[in-house]
Amino acid sequence: MLNKLFAKLEGYYDDMVTVRRYLHQHPELSFKEYQTAKFIQDFYEKLGIEVKGKIGSNGVVAKVYGKNPGKTVALRADFDALPIQDEKDVPYKSTVPGVMHACGHDGHTATLLFLAKALNELRDELAGNYVFIHQYAEEYAPGGAISMIEDGCLEGVDVIFGTHLWASEPTGKIQYRTGPIMAAADRFEIDIQGQGGHGAQPHKTKDAIVTASQLVINLQQIVSRKVNPVDSAVVTVGSFTAQNAFNVIADKVKLVGTVRTFNEDVRSFIEKEMDRIIHGTCYLADSSYEFLYERGYPAVVNHAKETDFLITCAEEVPEVQMIEETEPQMGGEDFAYYLERVPGTFFFTGAKPEGVEKPAPHHHPKFDIDEKAMLIAAKTLGTAAIRIHNQE
Amino acid sequence: MLNKLFAKLEGYYDDMVTVRRYLHQHPELSFKEYQTAKFIQDFYEKLGIEVKGKIGSNGVVAKVYGKNPGKTVALRADFDALPIQDEKDVPYKSTVPGVMHACGHDGHTATLLFLAKALNELRDELAGNYVFIHQYAEEYAPGGAISMIEDGCLEGVDVIFGTHLWASEPTGKIQYRTGPIMAAADRFEIDIQGQGGHGAQPHKTKDAIVTASQLVINLQQIVSRKVNPVDSAVVTVGSFTAQNAFNVIADKVKLVGTVRTFNEDVRSFIEKEMDRIIHGTCYLADSSYEFLYERGYPAVVNHAKETDFLITCAEEVPEVQMIEETEPQMGGEDFAYYLERVPGTFFFTGAKPEGVEKPAPHHHPKFDIDEKAMLIAAKTLGTAAIRIHNQE
Amino acid sequence: MLNKLFAKLEGYYDDMVTVRRYLHQHPELSFKEYQTAKFIQDFYEKLGIEVKGKIGSNGVVAKVYGKNPGKTVALRADFDALPIQDEKDVPYKSTVPGVMHACGHDGHTATLLFLAKALNELRDELAGNYVFIHQYAEEYAPGGAISMIEDGCLEGVDVIFGTHLWASEPTGKIQYRTGPIMAAADRFEIDIQGQGGHGAQPHKTKDAIVTASQLVINLQQIVSRKVNPVDSAVVTVGSFTAQNAFNVIADKVKLVGTVRTFNEDVRSFIEKEMDRIIHGTCYLADSSYEFLYERGYPAVVNHAKETDFLITCAEEVPEVQMIEETEPQMGGEDFAYYLERVPGTFFFTGAKPEGVEKPAPHHHPKFDIDEKAMLIAAKTLGTAAIRIHNQE
Amino acid sequence: MLNKLFAKLEGYYDDMVTVRRYLHQHPELSFKEYQTAKFIQDFYEKLGIEVKGKIGSNGVVAKVYGKNPGKTVALRADFDALPIQDEKDVPYKSTVPGVMHACGHDGHTATLLFLAKALNELRDELAGNYVFIHQYAEEYAPGGAISMIEDGCLEGVDVIFGTHLWASEPTGKIQYRTGPIMAAADRFEIDIQGQGGHGAQPHKTKDAIVTASQLVINLQQIVSRKVNPVDSAVVTVGSFTAQNAFNVIADKVKLVGTVRTFNEDVRSFIEKEMDRIIHGTCYLADSSYEFLYERGYPAVVNHAKETDFLITCAEEVPEVQMIEETEPQMGGEDFAYYLERVPGTFFFTGAKPEGVEKPAPHHHPKFDIDEKAMLIAAKTLGTAAIRIHNQE
Repeated sequence: MLNKLFAKLEGYYDDMVTVRRYLHQHPELSFKEYQTAKFIQDFYEKLGIEVKGKIGSNGVVAKVYGKNPGKTVALRADFDALPIQDEKDVPYKSTVPGVMHACGHDGHTATLLFLAKALNELRDELAGNYVFIHQYAEEYAPGGAISMIEDGCLEGVDVIFGTHLWASEPTGKIQYRTGPIMAAADRFEIDIQGQGGHGAQPHKTKDAIVTASQLVINLQQIVSRKVNPVDSAVVTVGSFTAQNAFNVIADKVKLVGTVRTFNEDVRSFIEKEMDRIIHGTCYLADSSYEFLYERGYPAVVNHAKETDFLITCAEEVPEVQMIEETEPQMGGEDFAYYLERVPGTFFFTGAKPEGVEKPAPHHHPKFDIDEKAMLIAAKTLGTAAIRIHNQE
Repeated sequence: MLNKLFAKLEGYYDDMVTVRRYLHQHPELSFKEYQTAKFIQDFYEKLGIEVKGKIGSNGVVAKVYGKNPGKTVALRADFDALPIQDEKDVPYKSTVPGVMHACGHDGHTATLLFLAKALNELRDELAGNYVFIHQYAEEYAPGGAISMIEDGCLEGVDVIFGTHLWASEPTGKIQYRTGPIMAAADRFEIDIQGQGGHGAQPHKTKDAIVTASQLVINLQQIVSRKVNPVDSAVVTVGSFTAQNAFNVIADKVKLVGTVRTFNEDVRSFIEKEMDRIIHGTCYLADSSYEFLYERGYPAVVNHAKETDFLITCAEEVPEVQMIEETEPQMGGEDFAYYLERVPGTFFFTGAKPEGVEKPAPHHHPKFDIDEKAMLIAAKTLGTAAIRIHNQE
Repeated sequence: MLNKLFAKLEGYYDDMVTVRRYLHQHPELSFKEYQTAKFIQDFYEKLGIEVKGKIGSNGVVAKVYGKNPGKTVALRADFDALPIQDEKDVPYKSTVPGVMHACGHDGHTATLLFLAKALNELRDELAGNYVFIHQYAEEYAPGGAISMIEDGCLEGVDVIFGTHLWASEPTGKIQYRTGPIMAAADRFEIDIQGQGGHGAQPHKTKDAIVTASQLVINLQQIVSRKVNPVDSAVVTVGSFTAQNAFNVIADKVKLVGTVRTFNEDVRSFIEKEMDRIIHGTCYLADSSYEFLYERGYPAVVNHAKETDFLITCAEEVPEVQMIEETEPQMGGEDFAYYLERVPGTFFFTGAKPEGVEKPAPHHHPKFDIDEKAMLIAAKTLGTAAIRIHNQE
Repeated sequence: MLNKLFAKLEGYYDDMVTVRRYLHQHPELSFKEYQTAKFIQDFYEKLGIEVKGKIGSNGVVAKVYGKNPGKTVALRADFDALPIQDEKDVPYKSTVPGVMHACGHDGHTATLLFLAKALNELRDELAGNYVFIHQYAEEYAPGGAISMIEDGCLEGVDVIFGTHLWASEPTGKIQYRTGPIMAAADRFEIDIQGQGGHGAQPHKTKDAIVTASQLVINLQQIVSRKVNPVDSAVVTVGSFTAQNAFNVIADKVKLVGTVRTFNEDVRSFIEKEMDRIIHGTCYLADSSYEFLYERGYPAVVNHAKETDFLITCAEEVPEVQMIEETEPQMGGEDFAYYLERVPGTFFFTGAKPEGVEKPAPHHHPKFDIDEKAMLIAAKTLGTAAIRIHNQE
């Protein structure tokens, strides 16, 4: 059975590349992926596969029914692009100025489309049902997953798998992790209101730059003293703005930043601690503030049984040369929402372009992937989709 | 003698107001005061008073020679305006968009012009010589004084007097001070170069916002611990800029600010201490920096004898109801350069608009003066110019 | 075979308690455990078991030889006590003022003695050899392990196991962890030399309290910004001393603290970062310093295969009701040195006194253990010792 | 008249030295100056001068009545010593272990005794009355002045003069200042209560050392940002104590320090700001505190007319070679209380030991004075006492 699947996927590899490159040339920003969604839907319709568009907003969900009874397994690929100017010098370079598939979602989509095609062709020999979730807007909170789930994309689903092509790891490597694999990624804004004045008269002012500087320093304590050292957390102030003439004392400062955590307790604790620290720091400066804390995606927390199972599946794929546990990544992913509802696992498929020592990182203007990794991703996901029905 | 002078000045008061209002309607920015300079030169030429333009760059110097031997006394008025939009609702409002006499230099000029006119008419009864320094560009470093001095405006001058119309004090008050009366006003820029990166990966970065925040805090120590508590000093960071996306760690920060001091030792010491503190703070953060320290005007340091003398002159002016010692002002003035070369004193002539509780401060879009203060300034300066020849 | 062992151990349980209580009443401080060492050596000698004292300094090593060939497995128990006054109200309370078995080493010793006795009695049915390492001075760096190893206690040893009775976890629970289970525990001293003076004349001094305060704050950045968020680390300043009259500016400050890490790279990195931060902070204050960094025990890093094996052993012990992965503990243990040289694992044996909600923590004057945990520890270690010969 | 006084004082100079050396050998601590008080009282009684002891507690007040009507002028000298071990190698070294006249009060006393003696002998030629205030306990708050005033020592007094022998300035110099000449010297204690714990578990604690370090840094802002730059102020934390084992997180910290100011508004403002800053800093650390602020002596604020008068008196004294305005001194003096009630002035009489480049500072174990300064002090005070009756 696996052999048949693998053979089919190998046969489609050139088409997979063609589709990926077509998408690469026609990237669309999060929440605006209208043409990409249409492309996906058309693909399924041409093959006579059951498909439904406008899930959530731009999501597309296709379904293949195996002949025999079994579980319903969902596979997910995201398809939005980023507001980055493509600086690669390749024929399939983005044709849209300032927009680019700089995170590999084009590859995810091509992978899933041809895996669906192959499984559909084998459906008479398969048990269970197959749900192909093509998700829009992964890059930009609140993301597409939550709305697609609300719109029913997980209905009846027993288990879900997803992968990310990962350009920093060599092709042939699969990275897994039980428990948290990607962080909750929150955003905050702090507006400090002091009292401005002439730079020569500090005693008539409440210097907002001094207050905000203290706050930046005080916030360091959350990670250094307040969070359990065996938990991981990041509190970053990424932006500090108080642009004034040189001889002025700043009236106000805006701080913007991010918090990354792997569990909900730590996350809530940090939000509360930030509030306390901001309050105290402004109190001592006799200044006021507004504190906005926006929760982004929660942590991606893989389920243990499904992760163990995924490892055994990866071992079946001939091109997989290394399977290793990864450290948790501090980046965010709205795959998190699926795993809050159904068991499953999210893993990384090495996709470092061959012969490249230091590949451009994700979200970089020169980002690219080794396209052969798509075949490995398709085979690994496919194996999981077929074999899951044998699991208790 | 004084009575004659006072009578003449009273007679010219309406013209003085007219000239001041004309200048108020036609303000020019520092270093671009071409029409104003021409206006002043024309004024003197029409009166047949010896006058020379283009001193330094836009400066004008007129001279009146008394019949009898005596000292050469200089009186100075500045005539540049500010890049501020006039928001007053008066007939003599600025006609130049975005430019305004928001510091009273129009009044200084009108005062000096008519005092010169009066002294010229009395020259046969006067001892000594009178130099009327109309200075351009007081508002913007390096200022006009230094270049006018280099161009000879102080040649032969024995003593100098100057005043500033001061809208925060009531008309009828004269404020004096021996020693420092206005501060040295310097400007600095600090560029901190850390190493940017993803907001979730602090360990791969050198967070420039954290480093700059520490620096702001560390700089507080200069005033709190390093400068002699009986000396006055201000170190203000007025601008802190690091505008980035929320999920980024800042690559660099620009700090801009000002230092105010009253003596050269403290000034030099602070510059050196800043360098040490910046160096140490960046060293500990493994980051680099550029530190630019631009000296503005030095402190205005009044001479004791001339200040004591000025007090006795003010006592002669009937409209002067109060003479008091002022605290040193942390603002800067390039009158400082004249006093580095010849003895003299700089004083404040109260000019609070009548009936106004809280007058708009200097450099404010609604700034105005009580024009009657011009008469008081003219009489006080005139008294000093005439009486100085009796001093040993 | 296991059944025979378990039966013997159950038979010795009362003696085990007696010995533990005797030791509890006669605690000896680290490096001074002369009577305890003699007690242990006598115990073996009376049984005719091969034993050698004065290993390292106060260590004792006994050996039992199984009839059949097999691996050489070492089991380790530590036997030193702490400088704490026993405040328990029990008949077996410490008889030595200010010295107490407040960490359970008395229980470790009793456990190992009777496990050795039982294995010795079964030696004709056993494969392999058994090395009983009674280690002195675990509580106080540099500890006894390193010297006992240098003195040959690990010669010929193939694998090692050790446990700690753990009063915060219920009796019946075994906690394991692959990789780091206990932290490297280092100690540092920082002496900051400023320049003292009169409290009213900061400008003539270099205020060491301000400098040291900044340093404490700056050190927070190591954990908050410099260490990879997925690594665990603690930098604690535990002592800050600058005791002076109120009207004095501090000449110097002494800071003392601890660093905890789980891997050598992070450990070395922190030492280097501390040096940089101290250097920069003192540079900016024009002050000098001495920085002493004393490495304590390295992290206890369990081997994966032996840890997996230990879990299967624990499953064989009837009294074990729960086997769970523990979070790494930030405390230190010189069992670390054994694991740097031979494979093995260190685990926790729950020993919370029955009926006690909040047991006194380790190193507390009221610390006690549930003695039944000794039987569980003996059975688990015994199972590992016997079963290890079946492992490839 | 002055000539007669000066001649008498010169004649008594040797006795003055003898008395000063006797007192130097027999120093007594503040509030315990029983023998010194008796010595003073005996001195007056032997001369038949009206004298009263036990004023306040250990104070002594003598009175001389001039023949003619005039003002009542008080002269004050303090007579307590310090808890310092005398390390000088001179015949008149202190005979009391650990107690020493390290501030010159022995000289003040000898000066005043013989000035009183001389004035008494001249009383038939003098106008007005003379009150000699020998004050105990100047060195230690609350000081002796306040209780002596309450006990009536200023009753009927019109004007008061006092001086301090000043070893850092050369003999022959008199330093004066109108307005604040010595600072208000307050004392504070801050007890921060965090929550202690194991050095490896910061998340279970509230690290009082981190909180107190932040507080020290935050307090710097009072002087650097909150006090008017033209006012002088010092906030010093002189003591920071949290002595613990290296592997502990501090439960609490005690900070002790001093505040120096020259005017009551600034003084009250700083106390209030400290409270706000402590409150905010502890709030953000979720910790509690106790803040004790003890007011010491207020600032010594000299009256303008009496200071101007004193200058003219000093000019009459032949040995006075230089009269200069001094910067305000940040040290404290309870002469402040007298000046709050009656007009007067406090000045410094240079007393640098001849031939010494760097004299030991006041309160130093090797402190000494140039005894000839006593004569200058006596003449200057005496001139003021006699001439004051000619002032309107």
